[in-house]
Amino acid sequence: MKLPERITNLMDSFSKVPGIGEKSALRHVLSLTKWTAEELGDFSNALNDLAELKKCKQCGVFADEDICDVCSDIHRKESTEICVVESITDYMAIERSGQYRGLYHVLGGVLNPLLGVGPAELNIDKLKKRVTELGVTSIILAIGPSVEGDATCSYIKSTLPENVMVDRIGFGIPMGGNLDYLDTMTISKALENKTKM
Amino acid sequence: MKLPERITNLMDSFSKVPGIGEKSALRHVLSLTKWTAEELGDFSNALNDLAELKKCKQCGVFADEDICDVCSDIHRKESTEICVVESITDYMAIERSGQYRGLYHVLGGVLNPLLGVGPAELNIDKLKKRVTELGVTSIILAIGPSVEGDATCSYIKSTLPENVMVDRIGFGIPMGGNLDYLDTMTISKALENKTKM
Repeated sequence: MKLPERITNLMDSFSKVPGIGEKSALRHVLSLTKWTAEELGDFSNALNDLAELKKCKQCGVFADEDICDVCSDIHRKESTEICVVESITDYMAIERSGQYRGLYHVLGGVLNPLLGVGPAELNIDKLKKRVTELGVTSIILAIGPSVEGDATCSYIKSTLPENVMVDRIGFGIPMGGNLDYLDTMTISKALENKTKM
Repeated sequence: MKLPERITNLMDSFSKVPGIGEKSALRHVLSLTKWTAEELGDFSNALNDLAELKKCKQCGVFADEDICDVCSDIHRKESTEICVVESITDYMAIERSGQYRGLYHVLGGVLNPLLGVGPAELNIDKLKKRVTELGVTSIILAIGPSVEGDATCSYIKSTLPENVMVDRIGFGIPMGGNLDYLDTMTISKALENKTKM
């Protein structure tokens, strides 16, 4: 069966989104045929606007302006603490917890020589610059536990001035986690990171 | 956490699509941030184009032009058989089977007095006109089994000229169906519709 081009073109775009297959794309397009021209126009404009989404010139987080909400927040911009994350989604996860009130820095990945990701490919120089300029005294490396993550943390620690306190986010049993179902690595880390009570 | 407007606006549009919740919308938008301006432009244009999607002036199926592919198909347009369906998705399901080579007619619903859907709300007058104009000899009512569907079929049969053969699509056990798991109505219908072998 040949579908009209107006339908197949839109299906093509929807199918390019990870998690949307051809069947879902068709289902979405058919439901969109019931939208008014105005609603479709809003969707269309929102897509075009996304192309102009900026990244904060300071920390690298998505922003409408040149500087993001966190970096321009009057209560946070004087902070001397930077939380280093791998990606913007990690930044969002930490912000959701509401526990952290300092600044952020998005690396854009972790060191991975096999994939050609060296220190130059990551946002590390800018981090060093910010540490000096803002007089940062504490860095929290919120980078996941993996060979590449560990190497990235070691590299960052070695590259920062010695008077900066560098911490790594804690590893252990997650809240509600059942010891019975957790992997041995997590259990080992949890024993290593035991805290006095 | 406050997300940039360019992200929330697009999330709003995505969340309006049935089957896409707020979490999926965010996931889609974040993956779209990796698209080039050109790819986003294509998606955006495809959405705007959808507003201009037409319905075939003959049968009511979606089409790029005034007349759809089936109605303008040189091998099908002379057909004297019309398959009446409730919606465009039903038309698509029948076309996918590849078993039917005649014309279609989309009703746009079934009679439902409680919801205010009477004969005038459905595309029935146009069907009568086509039957006369095209010299149609056979009508297949591919309308699902329900009280409303049954009433619609009876109404259409009563409104068509007597010399037109009116059939309804067959009901029974689906291919690969397990009798053990089927409802009693389907089993009853299947016994009623037994065929000589």
